[in-house]
Amino acid sequence: MTSTQAEIAFARSPHLRHLCYRLSLFRMAGTEVKSKKPAPAKNQSGGGGGGKKKEVKKETGLGLTNKKAENFGEWYSEVVVNSEMIEYYDISGCYILRPWAMSIWEIMQAFFDPEIKKMKIKNCYFPVFVSPSVLEKEKDHIEGFAPEVAWVTKSGQTDLEIPIAIRPTSETVMYPYFSKWIRGHRDLPLRLNQWCNVVRWEFSNPTPFIRSREFLWQEGHTAFASKEEADAEVLEILELYRRIYEEYLAVPVIKGKKSELEKFAGGLYTTSVEAFIPNTGRGIQGATSHCLGQNFAEMFEIDFEDENRKKAKVWQNSWAYSTRTIGVMVMVHGDDKGLVLPPKVASVQVVVIPVPYKDADTRGIFDAVSATVNTLSEAGIRAESDSRDNYSPGWKYSHWEMKGVPLRIEIGPKDLANQQVRAVRRDNGAKIDIKSADLVEEIKKLLDNIQQNLFDVAKQKRDECIQVIHTWDEFVQALGQRKMILAPWCDEKDVETDVKARTKGESGAAKTLCSPFDQPELPEGTKCFASGKPATKWSYWGRSY
Amino acid sequence: MTSTQAEIAFARSPHLRHLCYRLSLFRMAGTEVKSKKPAPAKNQSGGGGGGKKKEVKKETGLGLTNKKAENFGEWYSEVVVNSEMIEYYDISGCYILRPWAMSIWEIMQAFFDPEIKKMKIKNCYFPVFVSPSVLEKEKDHIEGFAPEVAWVTKSGQTDLEIPIAIRPTSETVMYPYFSKWIRGHRDLPLRLNQWCNVVRWEFSNPTPFIRSREFLWQEGHTAFASKEEADAEVLEILELYRRIYEEYLAVPVIKGKKSELEKFAGGLYTTSVEAFIPNTGRGIQGATSHCLGQNFAEMFEIDFEDENRKKAKVWQNSWAYSTRTIGVMVMVHGDDKGLVLPPKVASVQVVVIPVPYKDADTRGIFDAVSATVNTLSEAGIRAESDSRDNYSPGWKYSHWEMKGVPLRIEIGPKDLANQQVRAVRRDNGAKIDIKSADLVEEIKKLLDNIQQNLFDVAKQKRDECIQVIHTWDEFVQALGQRKMILAPWCDEKDVETDVKARTKGESGAAKTLCSPFDQPELPEGTKCFASGKPATKWSYWGRSY
Repeated sequence: MTSTQAEIAFARSPHLRHLCYRLSLFRMAGTEVKSKKPAPAKNQSGGGGGGKKKEVKKETGLGLTNKKAENFGEWYSEVVVNSEMIEYYDISGCYILRPWAMSIWEIMQAFFDPEIKKMKIKNCYFPVFVSPSVLEKEKDHIEGFAPEVAWVTKSGQTDLEIPIAIRPTSETVMYPYFSKWIRGHRDLPLRLNQWCNVVRWEFSNPTPFIRSREFLWQEGHTAFASKEEADAEVLEILELYRRIYEEYLAVPVIKGKKSELEKFAGGLYTTSVEAFIPNTGRGIQGATSHCLGQNFAEMFEIDFEDENRKKAKVWQNSWAYSTRTIGVMVMVHGDDKGLVLPPKVASVQVVVIPVPYKDADTRGIFDAVSATVNTLSEAGIRAESDSRDNYSPGWKYSHWEMKGVPLRIEIGPKDLANQQVRAVRRDNGAKIDIKSADLVEEIKKLLDNIQQNLFDVAKQKRDECIQVIHTWDEFVQALGQRKMILAPWCDEKDVETDVKARTKGESGAAKTLCSPFDQPELPEGTKCFASGKPATKWSYWGRSY
Repeated sequence: MTSTQAEIAFARSPHLRHLCYRLSLFRMAGTEVKSKKPAPAKNQSGGGGGGKKKEVKKETGLGLTNKKAENFGEWYSEVVVNSEMIEYYDISGCYILRPWAMSIWEIMQAFFDPEIKKMKIKNCYFPVFVSPSVLEKEKDHIEGFAPEVAWVTKSGQTDLEIPIAIRPTSETVMYPYFSKWIRGHRDLPLRLNQWCNVVRWEFSNPTPFIRSREFLWQEGHTAFASKEEADAEVLEILELYRRIYEEYLAVPVIKGKKSELEKFAGGLYTTSVEAFIPNTGRGIQGATSHCLGQNFAEMFEIDFEDENRKKAKVWQNSWAYSTRTIGVMVMVHGDDKGLVLPPKVASVQVVVIPVPYKDADTRGIFDAVSATVNTLSEAGIRAESDSRDNYSPGWKYSHWEMKGVPLRIEIGPKDLANQQVRAVRRDNGAKIDIKSADLVEEIKKLLDNIQQNLFDVAKQKRDECIQVIHTWDEFVQALGQRKMILAPWCDEKDVETDVKARTKGESGAAKTLCSPFDQPELPEGTKCFASGKPATKWSYWGRSY
């Protein structure tokens, strides 16, 4: 083995690399703070990279210290911090979205926003503040949000005459104006959307992306003359949410309807896409599309003159997806090396790394790296090089693995000589030599393949967690095994309340996730697993986020 | 004159149309509320369309009741409401940005965001909340904002342990983390931007877009190893702001440097683009690009190891433009018929209106309208038809004039017969018959021409307001004439303070707007207009928003 070969072998050996990375002379961003400084982002809410370390040359214990299978919560906090998506903030439950996370949000936005514009939905912006009288107008609705509402009571040193709420969602902010703007059937449909921040001052278990006191979302609010139109839109939007999860984030979801107990406070019915996190055995509501019926129209007097000049109330929908999407993706795809990004949402799809060594044609290698990035960029592939001279190739491999970049391209002397590059997949570690002449075509194929493979693997894992049960005993057993439980149910509110009470415990009560639109056959005479009454539908049950 | 000709003549007569519109059987959105309903958006802050009206068939006094030259403030409020850009909100100083305003914001965003991405500036999102200890760290800075800070003190029924501020700007939110992330010269430059809402609870003269308690903006925050790099970025960003105003909004601005008294609190120096509103004789700060120097770096300990392994402090910038841009555009271009939109920011650049009449080929006209919209859309022109059958052509003309659409195309029987369309310019009312075969080419030319003409006219008006003065008497006289005053100045802080004190009055004190980068010659011996000391530069002075 020549010294060249040795160096390449070293760089390409996962074991040696891992060791090298952990003994790295260089810091991993976000895993330490300079000792001389105050620690502004000290983690106040469990998990995640805030430990103080002395600024010395040899730092150890970098990379991930927790394993996904062993210590999921800590692993998650570590991944989102070490991949540079999240920085913990000095106010508990608030998080900084760093560019690596924000770029994913922007890519989803670049898909969703034009789709809703095609549907003639228009963007607007309503104030972040709500006056209490308006906020409290719809009783069921405010009951759902009241404990989480943040109140502004002072400006400068002056007390406000009345406290002003920060929007937890904008139904009550917007609908007084719907009432003003809608008069006749020609003013309908009214279809608005806004991209904004909302605040829900929750105290339980803040988790980056998944449950935070402030988060970013879009919220659509629409009004129609007929229930049929509203119903149709609910599903059309839900399909866009499914596409965000399945086509972009490569996360399988189940479309369905929420139970009466779990539906949106004040609405008629709620549909959702539900994801599942196999490691914790918890369901997670991915995004919701609500039909509000005419309840808010009643409260806010949103009525119109119909074609027959008769007064009628509008039918309304509201729907939203949030930065939670990103958290679900991290939980589903991440591994012990860090983040794993599906190519469609990766701001860097391919990172190209030179693997130079003494006495070789270093210049030629760096030129090949640049040329490769240019060729890929021109073909519309998001490619970047990492030609920094103060990090070893091995360090860089680990760094970009931590950040979840879908494909790494290595270019060393042998590759140069053979007019090829070596591609390494983040999802399964497979190494593929690609002739430079076939570069674009092969990389495109690989990216498509990675996207599909991530979804397939995630779906297989999710499907393995689904368990069909018929009795209470089976239910309890499956719940203990962290399953996503599909059960025949009588669809009665009291029964769900009862199930919640009976399963209450340290890890939280079980509840319905949804009744899937795609219903298995329900043979006549099938009984509800919980009440023994006749079952009317299949529903998914489980613990959830 | 046939009945057809009479109808067309009627539709095309501005006088008759105006009368018809004001006696309109139909409402103008936003100028009234249904009497049976509470008035949610009652204007609490001066001006603007909130009066209650009975819902009767004949409504009068629609359109604009105020004239720009006579009653500027009321005219402005009426324009922004009647054009459906703004709805007044039930919390004073907060406004609803309706789609007609939001689309302009989005178009500017679609220009600016890719431009800064080319500069390797990355988007992120920091929390809306700031803890008091961090907020108050930089004394000069917080002094500038303290009276306007909104404080959250409660969540639900629970008092927070410490009150939490809502960001008025994000320097103090971000810089503790800059300190954490920046260690060596290789971490520089750090260049971040965020699109977000900020809150400044001002009590004086809230005005839609111009001065509101919550507004949307982008804020860029960057750190460099050297002052030279920071200085260069300040100007690069300022040039983008100039382009937003001049190339997109067709508003002439002056680039320059703020005085010590007017610079950003806590910063080293502030550059800005300054616009001017001839009707009120007031300058208005269009957008600012600050070099913060090393002051915040000192406070927040943002230092790094340079290439010689020596500890150094970073050089920082921050820069922002806000939804104020839209207000400036309305003030500059609007007229007594309503809004006037420059084509580059108009979400509808061309509205196509059928002018049918009895016994004519109505079907042919509507088909021609559709075909025209399709042809224009395919050519990348933002075109829409207004084929509603419950409004007269005349009503539609006035409606789309109110909304400021740059070009109207009318298609009537004569146009159909001659294979032409009639285009009417919003900016100057000119009517142009265009052969259908030349449609795309001619419309593109017209739109370019309108864009240029709006800028030229605005610049001419602005330039007519600029007055060069040398003495205090000339200064006072020019101020009385609402001029934008260019004066030789000694550049001493006390002198500006003194000028402010001496000009204090009902309409506010005069102050510096900026010292233009483009300095006229300053002959040796020229004296400061205010102090009589040797002048060191030319500065613009005036009252301002």
